[in-house]
Order: sequence, then structure tokens, then C-alpha cells
Amino acid sequence: MIRFLTVKNIINIIAEIGLETCFIHLTQLLQQEFSRWQSFEKMPRIASHFPYGVIELMPIHDEQFYAYKYVNGHPTNPQRGQLTVIAMGMLAEVSTGYPLLISEMTLLTALRTAATAALASQYLARSNARSLLIIGTGSQAEFLVLALKAVLNIQVVYFFDIDQRALEKFARNLMGYQIELRLCNDVKKIIKKVDIIVTATAKKGQTLILENSWLVPGLHINGIGGDCPGKTELDPAILRRAKVVVEYLQQSKCEGEIQQLDEYSCVELWEIITGKKTGRESNDEVTVFDSVGFALEDYTVLKYFYNLSKEMGIGEEIDLIPKVDDSRNLFSLLCTRHPKFHN
Amino acid sequence: MIRFLTVKNIINIIAEIGLETCFIHLTQLLQQEFSRWQSFEKMPRIASHFPYGVIELMPIHDEQFYAYKYVNGHPTNPQRGQLTVIAMGMLAEVSTGYPLLISEMTLLTALRTAATAALASQYLARSNARSLLIIGTGSQAEFLVLALKAVLNIQVVYFFDIDQRALEKFARNLMGYQIELRLCNDVKKIIKKVDIIVTATAKKGQTLILENSWLVPGLHINGIGGDCPGKTELDPAILRRAKVVVEYLQQSKCEGEIQQLDEYSCVELWEIITGKKTGRESNDEVTVFDSVGFALEDYTVLKYFYNLSKEMGIGEEIDLIPKVDDSRNLFSLLCTRHPKFHN
Repeated sequence: MIRFLTVKNIINIIAEIGLETCFIHLTQLLQQEFSRWQSFEKMPRIASHFPYGVIELMPIHDEQFYAYKYVNGHPTNPQRGQLTVIAMGMLAEVSTGYPLLISEMTLLTALRTAATAALASQYLARSNARSLLIIGTGSQAEFLVLALKAVLNIQVVYFFDIDQRALEKFARNLMGYQIELRLCNDVKKIIKKVDIIVTATAKKGQTLILENSWLVPGLHINGIGGDCPGKTELDPAILRRAKVVVEYLQQSKCEGEIQQLDEYSCVELWEIITGKKTGRESNDEVTVFDSVGFALEDYTVLKYFYNLSKEMGIGEEIDLIPKVDDSRNLFSLLCTRHPKFHN
Repeated sequence: MIRFLTVKNIINIIAEIGLETCFIHLTQLLQQEFSRWQSFEKMPRIASHFPYGVIELMPIHDEQFYAYKYVNGHPTNPQRGQLTVIAMGMLAEVSTGYPLLISEMTLLTALRTAATAALASQYLARSNARSLLIIGTGSQAEFLVLALKAVLNIQVVYFFDIDQRALEKFARNLMGYQIELRLCNDVKKIIKKVDIIVTATAKKGQTLILENSWLVPGLHINGIGGDCPGKTELDPAILRRAKVVVEYLQQSKCEGEIQQLDEYSCVELWEIITGKKTGRESNDEVTVFDSVGFALEDYTVLKYFYNLSKEMGIGEEIDLIPKVDDSRNLFSLLCTRHPKFHN
């Protein structure tokens, strides 16, 4: 039997440990896994593009575990009451090829994206950062804000969206989390007051959610929404001026903000985590984490929830592995005379 | 909720329709899908090789469905009582990216491999073929023999293996299937008596299960066991002499028997199915189906069992898709105040 984590199981695990603790652990685990970057066999995700969306497979492995995620992105799904992104993933044992865990990953993807942004911000935001502005209060927004709050010392959150209902649900969801929430009506003006900006819009195409002329020295930007070919949020002049950190250059150069540049000098996140490259170098530097989401983050969150699931005894079991006495006798499963058939 | 087919579900579906009917349907469906080869976006499978095995992802899609399979191959697993191959797959809807079906695919892989060999044999074996020799009576053997029997008019089956227990389990499993089973002690001698040869050994490395000098005119060979880099079963002289048919050249040239050749002139299976190329041209010709297994076969068997599962009402449902009233409100799942949390 294979362990299976449903949406409900994931919700219960998070409720048990608390979302803040979950983000703190996950950020620590991401830091550990990114530190041993060379231990992983990596490849850019395998994306199939359609007129109305994208479907991707994201595999990665080290010597012990193989992980992959199936994930889609269909921006028009919400028009039919469906989610833009649905994901599921598997963790398997490399030594046998046997699956260990199959899990929902729609929630896990939101968690790991937010925790990775928090991890990058630990190295890139000013150490005295206390306030942030989030532009785009869609389905990722609360996760991003709470992960940053859990790991940094964020006290004030300005929030902006062009959709009034998205603003309302964001404010409603974050009531009771001890954050000073401030509705932002003028992005250009508020930028001057904050330490960190998060862009997380669903807007398609090459947009200018942030313009270079609006920025002030010392800002750190987490660019979350520009994450596939043709979809960007930042003024390319920002990328030329700032220190830009990506997860995995080979993937990010096609999917991230840096797809707008002909030439780029980026740092990979693992390089600043291991000290190979420096993170923020001065209080005046502008830094960008150009996040697109990488398989190593899925690997990390799958391993984390696999262990939590075993420790807490939360999870289902599914009948995915044929049980045969003799490994060469797969056919015995279909023998009606065989007692297994009548189990 | 997503439909899920367990091992038990698959066994029950096959028991309901009967294995022979299942093979006849599946062969017909494979013929239909291979006929519209140009409708599919194809790629060689994504393989991760380890000292003790391989783990693969095999995606494919047309405009309606996206399918992928996770499958391993670990030849030493049986030493620990585990199966060499475990597989699971998904069928998803291209228009939304939503999964439709997750299924065990260890059994389904055995079915589709056998049905594809039967399909190829319809075009490549002599029309009066009545007898076959199978070399290697491991976990695939009964499936291969029964698929060929279901689709062609096979009456006599010679069987050979170096493992006495594998021979016994094969003979035991096929009792009652109205096949004249004859134990083969001398492959070279029996080759002269049969119309079709199936090689399906688990032997690693470049082996010579069949030598060119043993062959007689008119034979059709289904080469099943040579299916990954470094693993072949046939004398390369056979491949130079015979008409060789592969599933998908881009994948087969690295994984199939033809990996042994510097130059090859192969036909792809869809080309003979659509009449673009000719299958068998004379009674004297030697033909080879160099099978490695291709994602289109997984697509076909997943679609077939998805439809069977719906028609028969067999299958489980799993909680893999978050249910939210507002697609932008994924976070509501984690709001303890939210009634959904207490479901």
C-alpha cells in the first residue's frame, strides 16, 4: 500500500502544527536542500503549452528520493468556477523505484512557493525590513505574506489589487494574524514606505506591474507572478539595475522575469545560501528574487509532508502496488482460480 | 473528486469483460490511436538512470487528453520479493488541466505492451501464422501470448526459459486457455517450426537471445525485452536483414534493438497502419517489431479503462482537488473559522 495525502489530510496536518511553524520548518528545510544543490539531478520542467493553458511535469532526484509534480496553469478556469492551478505529486524511493507517497500539491505548491520567497528574502531583504507591499491579492497572496511574516519580522502589510473582491477576501483571510494591514490606493506612493515588494498578479503577457522609476534604494522585490514564457511583471530596467537571484538559471531564463533580457548576470539561490556568492551587499542595493518555482521545492515539501504524515499518523493508504508471491508471476493476479482474485 | 483505479479495480474490470475481449478491444483502440499519429505531441520518455535501475516519466497529449505514466525498472527488486516494474498513470483534460483519472499501471502496462505486439504482428506476421515460440517466461509472458492468441489465430505455443520455475508458472497460468503448450528444450530446432518468435527476457546487457543463422524465412519476431540503453536481445545481423518496425524512432534509436546499429532504415508502426509504408511484403520476408513501449500506448489504455470504469461503475474517488467557492480563495481552506475546515 502507498501512502496518499488528500486535500483534507494536508489541511489537518497544517492545522495540527500551525501554519507559522510550518513555514518556519519548510524554509529551514529548503535552505538545507538548496545547500546541497550538487546532489540533485536537475532539469527544466517539461511543459506542454495549449491555447488556454499549460501542463507541466517537474521531476528531480538525488540518490535517495525521486520526486515529481504534475501541475497545470489555466488562467480562464476561474470563469467556470475552477482553480487556475491544480497539482499532485509523488515521492519515490530511488533504490527500488517504489512510490512512497502520492499527494495533493495544490496547497503544497502554495506553501513551497511562499517559503522559497521567504528563504530568498532572508538573504536579500534588508535585515531591518518590517513592511511589505503585495501587488496582486489572488490565490497565492496570503501564503506569501504569512511565510514572509513567519521568517522575517514583518509588521505592516500594504496590499493592492485591481479587483475589489480580491482585496476583501485577502483582508478577511488575514484578520487575526497580528499583521497591520493597510489598503494601498497608490502603489507609487507606498513603494517609498516599504522594505519589500511582492508582485503576484495573474495578468497575462508582458506587463509593467512595477516600473524602475518608482523604486527607491534598498528595496527587495519578490517577483512571483512572472513564471512562464510570455508572462512578466517587472520593468526590464529593474532587472538591469538590481541584483537578480533565480532558482535554476536553465529554467528561469525561459520562464522568469529575465526572459526579457538578452544578457543577464544572475545568481542562483543556492549560491548565496552556500556563501559562494554574496546576497545583499549594502542597504542601498535593489534586489530581485525572480521566482518561477523549481522541482527542488516540490521535492522538499513532499519529503516534509511525508515525514509529518508518518509522525502524525495522518494519511490514507491506496492499493497501487500489485501483491504477488512471485515477482515474475504478475499474471497470477488475473487467474480467477487464484485465491488473490477473491480477496 | 478524481477517479482512481486501484489494482483490485483493474482486476475486476478485466474479470468482467474477459481478458480476450480486453485484448481485442485494446488492439483495435491502439490501431485507431496510432492511425492519428500526427494529432499527438510526442517526446521520448524522460529517463533517470541509477546504478540499480531506471525511473521514467512518459507524457503525451493530443488536443483533448494529456496522459503520463510514472514507471520504474529495477532488475534486482525480485531478490527482495519486489516487482521489477511498478507503474502509475494519469489521464487529464487538456482544456482545464484537471486530472480525470489516476490509475495503477503495472497491470495496464503489461496489457498495452502485449496488445501493441499483437497489433504489430497483425501487419507483420504471415496471415497463416498459427504457432509461436516465446523465449523468456517472466512477468510479461502470459500477457504477450494471450494478446497474440486473441488477435491472431495462434494455436501452438512453444516456451523456453533458463529458469525451471518460470516455465512452471507460465504453464500453470495458461492452463485452460485452449492453447497447445509445448515446452521447448532446443530453441534452434523449434525456430524452424514456428511462425512467430517473442523474445521477452530480463537479461541485462547486450545478449544474443536470437542469432541470425538460426532464423528461417518468413519469421516474424516481436523483440520485447530489449527496451533500454545497453539492453538488447537480438543479433544485430537480424536487424540488418529484416524489415524492422519501431514505435517512435526518436525514442527507439536509443532504447530498442536498433541501438546496436550505426545506420538503420526503420519503419514506424503508424506508417504501416496508415498504409504510408507496407508491412509484410512476402512470405519469405523476416520482420521484427522492435518494441520498447511508447507513451501513446499508455494514453490508449488509460482512456480505455477510464471509459470502462465509468460504464461499469468500478473505481474509487479520491480527494485531490481543493473545493473552494472562489477560485482566488485557496487560503480559505486553511481558515479554521471557515466551515470547510470542519467538514
